Amino acid sequence: MPATERSPRIAVIGGGQLARMMAQPAIALGVPLRLLAEAEGVSAAQVIPDQQVGDYRDLATLQAVTEGCSVVTFDHEHVPTEHLRALADDGVVAHPGPEALVHAQDKIVMREAMTRLGAPQPRWAVVTSVAEVETFGLPCVLKTSRGGYDGKGVWFARTTADAADALATAEEAGVRLLAEELVDFRRELSALVARAPSGQAAAYPVVASLQVDGICREVVAPAPDLDPALATAAQELALRIAGELGVTGILAVELFEAVDADGNPQVLVNELAMRPHNTGHWTQDGAVTSQFENHLRAALDLPLGSPEPRARWTVMVNILGGDNPDVGRLYDGYPHALARDPRLRVHLYGKDLRPGRKVGHVNTFGDDLEDCLERARHAAAWFRGDLGNHSE
Amino acid sequence: MPATERSPRIAVIGGGQLARMMAQPAIALGVPLRLLAEAEGVSAAQVIPDQQVGDYRDLATLQAVTEGCSVVTFDHEHVPTEHLRALADDGVVAHPGPEALVHAQDKIVMREAMTRLGAPQPRWAVVTSVAEVETFGLPCVLKTSRGGYDGKGVWFARTTADAADALATAEEAGVRLLAEELVDFRRELSALVARAPSGQAAAYPVVASLQVDGICREVVAPAPDLDPALATAAQELALRIAGELGVTGILAVELFEAVDADGNPQVLVNELAMRPHNTGHWTQDGAVTSQFENHLRAALDLPLGSPEPRARWTVMVNILGGDNPDVGRLYDGYPHALARDPRLRVHLYGKDLRPGRKVGHVNTFGDDLEDCLERARHAAAWFRGDLGNHSE
Repeated sequence: MPATERSPRIAVIGGGQLARMMAQPAIALGVPLRLLAEAEGVSAAQVIPDQQVGDYRDLATLQAVTEGCSVVTFDHEHVPTEHLRALADDGVVAHPGPEALVHAQDKIVMREAMTRLGAPQPRWAVVTSVAEVETFGLPCVLKTSRGGYDGKGVWFARTTADAADALATAEEAGVRLLAEELVDFRRELSALVARAPSGQAAAYPVVASLQVDGICREVVAPAPDLDPALATAAQELALRIAGELGVTGILAVELFEAVDADGNPQVLVNELAMRPHNTGHWTQDGAVTSQFENHLRAALDLPLGSPEPRARWTVMVNILGGDNPDVGRLYDGYPHALARDPRLRVHLYGKDLRPGRKVGHVNTFGDDLEDCLERARHAAAWFRGDLGNHSE
Repeated sequence: MPATERSPRIAVIGGGQLARMMAQPAIALGVPLRLLAEAEGVSAAQVIPDQQVGDYRDLATLQAVTEGCSVVTFDHEHVPTEHLRALADDGVVAHPGPEALVHAQDKIVMREAMTRLGAPQPRWAVVTSVAEVETFGLPCVLKTSRGGYDGKGVWFARTTADAADALATAEEAGVRLLAEELVDFRRELSALVARAPSGQAAAYPVVASLQVDGICREVVAPAPDLDPALATAAQELALRIAGELGVTGILAVELFEAVDADGNPQVLVNELAMRPHNTGHWTQDGAVTSQFENHLRAALDLPLGSPEPRARWTVMVNILGGDNPDVGRLYDGYPHALARDPRLRVHLYGKDLRPGRKVGHVNTFGDDLEDCLERARHAAAWFRGDLGNHSE
């Protein structure tokens, strides 16, 4: 019997790029994955042989795909927690488990938990009417409690009309709405930790991320000019949240770096994600152990690998579809991009370029941050077609 | 149409660990692989979805598996060159091509080429009788021209009886026999280069390898205390061989480090391999671009990635099956090995431990060579079961 038949098999729900990138360390670890893909030929389905196609909202589908698997983990956070409880009754343990995962599914549940933990966060409130939004204070940020991602389900509300729009959208979707104060932040940070069921945890260096319209564009690891005390506070906060919520696998705590009323630097919790995260893609080429490998190790309750960086600086820039509808063939970007920069690390997801879509990312590393930024930005812009290249 | 439908598809012949480890950079590059596996469930077949099972010696099988692929490459060097010429007539280009590959298939053809190139090598001769072996000089090394690997098909002949044995084996196998002088070498080195059809080539640092009974056990990158002039000479030699023979993909030139009649250090060509090689596994964790990625880039005629090292030292130790037949579950080695060394990099091949079988390897890297050696040797011995662990 091959060794793989004797290793735990991990079910992965969702066929996006995060599942795709889990496949690389799974190959190294000799651990077989079984994929539930939302459709034939999606990103992860291109690279994981043992796969089924189906709807993650259907319990019978989840039971079928996890048969013979001891653990199940996720490419996304949308699997209903009641289904995860049902799977647990069948002996299939979810990492993260439903009690943790709900905090990544529901922003109001998350905010309530942060309040309970005394974690620093923006002032917030559940709002059910325009009057309540006005009482909370305009301008503010409005978010649907569930279903938002990459800037969707988020409004920068300046007027009562904006508030009415958001309330109507939430009501139509059957979800609640919360208001958050507009934070005058210096920049966004991300504190990424891995945590195993044993309780062992590993904290990656805190990174700076540049978000445009709610979509991650760039990450610099570690965050430049970050107060060491604040970096430690951010790591400790992420470790405490992971422990208190019982997170297993990767937890990304997205943070605002701001100053408090006394002018002291502070971090405020913006969002939680419980899966490998875009702000951790730099670890593939910049850390001893990537977030994808540590996510799998945590799911298996194996000792975690070192999160320490392998270079002074690592920069990640996303390749996002732009406005040029003629650019679809990412592959055509290779000859120039690779010849210009032999140290460039490219990660493509097996997707076509479409406006706004994340189709890949590049990593650069080295001693000179400006050089790393220039190389990564140039390559991402080249693949995207912004430099007038590979028009058809 | 997904991007992958527009990227060249690479056929890989052979389902061993080398094909398995090509799958990791193929995922990152967004390049689809199609595998010809020798049997269901072999090492690479566990991780490459697009696969067929069949015999690489059958032309119709090769034609079926390469349909729709622009290039074909290899996990091993045994595909008949006449089949590769037939595939080329159908527009499927082999990397390496048949004119190069024959030098990795037939040791006499290789020796003749090295003589033609004036490459330094041990004295050698084709031998057809015991008398010819005696004339060549005993003791000597006898090798079958074809079919040998990992110490098989090689004899350290001390007596005429040894020579008679080797001659009989060669005759039975229908192959020729060559004699090589016994080289009084200091150690074995390996010079690994990648070469693209464009002619671009990249040379990895020269490494030292420890071979036991013809099987690679350990590799240290770069080779410690290697005369810089000799290192450069070895790299130049490998680049020249790759260019002169028209190699595309990875070429490993296994070398003896010795001294010439004047007492000057020299390298002598021992073997050639034209595929990712065991002496290059350290590049997965120790170089900017792994040998597996550069092999794929070369097959696609894309610019090659930097071969520069990412650490002062990288050590690779193979995990080989030992004498304990009760140890089969490699997975059981994880808790101790990973907890002891969070910086350990493990690569398992999805195979069970059997005596003498290569089932995985570990890489360590750092500034302290002794520490890297200790950590890698301990982990490999632990997985192998030599430390009294995980008996069942």
